[in-house]
Amino acid sequence: MQPVNIGIVGLGNVGIGALEILAENGEAIAQKLGFPLVVRAVSSRSVASKALPAAFASTLKTPTWREVVEHPEVDVVVELVGGVTVAREIVETAIAQGKAVVTANKELMALAGAELWDRAVAANVNLAMEASVAGGIPIHAVLREGISGDRIQTLYGILNGTCNYILTEIEGRGASFDDVLSEAQAKGYAEVDPSADVDGYDARSKLAILAALAFGERITPTDIYTEGIRRITPIDFEYAHQLRHTIRLICAARQTPNGVILSVRPSLLPQSTILASVRGAYNAVWVRGQYGADTFYYGRGAGSHPTGVAVVSDLMRVARELRWGSPGRVSPFAHAHLGEYQPIPITLHRSAYYLRFRVQDRPGIIAQLATALAAEQISIDAVLQLPNSNWRDLPFVITVEPATEQSIRAAVARMVELNFLIEPPLALPMEEPL
Amino acid sequence: MQPVNIGIVGLGNVGIGALEILAENGEAIAQKLGFPLVVRAVSSRSVASKALPAAFASTLKTPTWREVVEHPEVDVVVELVGGVTVAREIVETAIAQGKAVVTANKELMALAGAELWDRAVAANVNLAMEASVAGGIPIHAVLREGISGDRIQTLYGILNGTCNYILTEIEGRGASFDDVLSEAQAKGYAEVDPSADVDGYDARSKLAILAALAFGERITPTDIYTEGIRRITPIDFEYAHQLRHTIRLICAARQTPNGVILSVRPSLLPQSTILASVRGAYNAVWVRGQYGADTFYYGRGAGSHPTGVAVVSDLMRVARELRWGSPGRVSPFAHAHLGEYQPIPITLHRSAYYLRFRVQDRPGIIAQLATALAAEQISIDAVLQLPNSNWRDLPFVITVEPATEQSIRAAVARMVELNFLIEPPLALPMEEPL
Repeated sequence: MQPVNIGIVGLGNVGIGALEILAENGEAIAQKLGFPLVVRAVSSRSVASKALPAAFASTLKTPTWREVVEHPEVDVVVELVGGVTVAREIVETAIAQGKAVVTANKELMALAGAELWDRAVAANVNLAMEASVAGGIPIHAVLREGISGDRIQTLYGILNGTCNYILTEIEGRGASFDDVLSEAQAKGYAEVDPSADVDGYDARSKLAILAALAFGERITPTDIYTEGIRRITPIDFEYAHQLRHTIRLICAARQTPNGVILSVRPSLLPQSTILASVRGAYNAVWVRGQYGADTFYYGRGAGSHPTGVAVVSDLMRVARELRWGSPGRVSPFAHAHLGEYQPIPITLHRSAYYLRFRVQDRPGIIAQLATALAAEQISIDAVLQLPNSNWRDLPFVITVEPATEQSIRAAVARMVELNFLIEPPLALPMEEPL
Repeated sequence: MQPVNIGIVGLGNVGIGALEILAENGEAIAQKLGFPLVVRAVSSRSVASKALPAAFASTLKTPTWREVVEHPEVDVVVELVGGVTVAREIVETAIAQGKAVVTANKELMALAGAELWDRAVAANVNLAMEASVAGGIPIHAVLREGISGDRIQTLYGILNGTCNYILTEIEGRGASFDDVLSEAQAKGYAEVDPSADVDGYDARSKLAILAALAFGERITPTDIYTEGIRRITPIDFEYAHQLRHTIRLICAARQTPNGVILSVRPSLLPQSTILASVRGAYNAVWVRGQYGADTFYYGRGAGSHPTGVAVVSDLMRVARELRWGSPGRVSPFAHAHLGEYQPIPITLHRSAYYLRFRVQDRPGIIAQLATALAAEQISIDAVLQLPNSNWRDLPFVITVEPATEQSIRAAVARMVELNFLIEPPLALPMEEPL
């Protein structure tokens, strides 16, 4: 049978990984499909310096992406350049040419996925993005096909491997955030500019895509309250462990009677939950459906080959549809528009909270903090203080019973006036995912 | 748009669960699909006594399955009667009528799935079976779509919720197998005849289906070495914990240079692995791919609504294909026939082993057991004996370095001659899944 012809734009880690899989696993892929996938053209600004598998000796190699996208024989364009400007032009040009697109671009899909999907629908081509979130975990296939009959109530993700690596290193070794970050940068696990990871923006893009897919609403990154992990210290893990919890950067989307509350923020999780067992540079997604109860998905979040598998699996699906027709595409964005899943502000979130203080010790501190909490009708659950002799910088923790984010913020605003505080209180929600 | 019409045969737990989801979640399902799913006919021998949701007031209800399967308006037949005789007739009749089939029947699919798939292909209808394995976990969608580009090396499953519940109760409470089983039967968690569960046959059917899907080979239940959990005692968990392991009924399919080794048997797992965290009536699947590294999937193994989600999600996929055409169906059975995944005997399996003995204590026991192991070239890793004063029935454990199942069996055959043994040694493999 005639092959389906692929063009790949962008030959970084993921592009090379996908090419290696297509070369090495090509025979099995052709057997599964009934026809081969042939890479007709690849482009990269540094294409001359790229060592490609021998199978691609006769593939067109060009520094110009248009030569790939507009190549008359290319049926499917794989966009792997990242970023939002050139990438968007590549995707739009491919769609305009009537070509299907496979992309790993979380930032672009989070920002403009719904518009690009609409263009793809109008052009009757597919737009596949399994690789854009949690590279090694086929979470798109799960939400699109596997549990499509369910009604999702809550979705929690650990979606940034760098943050999870840093947090579990702080947890395991008692090292500081700065030290672990420097080491991770030296080893190449973290970027020189770490902000996209440690300030939560990367995770936010991924949550925007997953929440849209899970709830069938248009959700954009600005709908998501986002807070990074820079303030987490070894002391916080000591107190969390005292509470039989741990701390992870949790991407959360929760259905409430009034709408969906979306956040990316460090959160306490009970140690007994399966999400708490996710360590190092792994990703995970935990879903609670109204009917299917809780399911959990775990794997590599990134990496040349794990993300390459997502790209190749998408290529296989898209190629089958090109060959035999589409069974009707379920939009990953806003497919239902039932309205019940509109994003609402984080201030309406309600949960127990962990409040960590650093103070210059003196009498009356607890009384003043308790007064601030009482003024907002917040009930104290426990006051914890681990042994520490440094009265000039004494950390301790108050946990409170379920309260709204709004009331917690109001109480914190009262507290920052208090002159014994060395820094503003750190307030982390305590999740009960299982 | 015209609805797709459903006929459901069998109104047990899963059938009622699927009907409830179709009734309550029907609007969202119709929005996702672009057309509604309508249940035109249902059958059950006891249909008269079934309370169906009000949405199905005008649905044909009959005690005769043929009236559903041969109903001229039914497009898709859902087979939920279980067993292999009538169920096979129902599936074959539906296919012969040119109707798509959705089934939750693991036993039938494990025994005759390949033949039924061939019939479905010849009739150009779909045969969907997400609900047949690990009801709440969309593992079919994962293997069929999500990671289809990968080459699977190892698959481990915890696929029988009853066994996992019994084992974790023995582990948590130190109760005996017989006591936990009796309680589980009293509570309705275990069948009056528990053999299908505790002797591993249910898990074996599920592994046969998953391994066929994962490796693309014809695999039948008789290719799978199967051993149940009846011999596991609280003492085994005490020794396992001493070794920082736990014990689970593991369904394993491993690629080796010579072929695939398939087994269902109680096995030791390191406590640090994510599979070891699966407790109670949950199911889980852990997959190692050549490219995607390790991924893990977790959820309810059974239950009216979790399995109902699998049935409804399959119905949605099948209905989309009926409406808009199939994108080419990838056979869940023997789609590749590359030959590299032929099943080979369990005796070729190689791993570390845990050997637990019950003896009448006297001098020279270790020497005689060590002699039996040495005669088979098996190296002892450790000898463990927890405090125990009952010299008439003394349990202790020897762990050995990696050896073949064949050599372990030969050593055990030498040992059973020794008259200080109260029962034959219990040999469990020690898995290293992560």
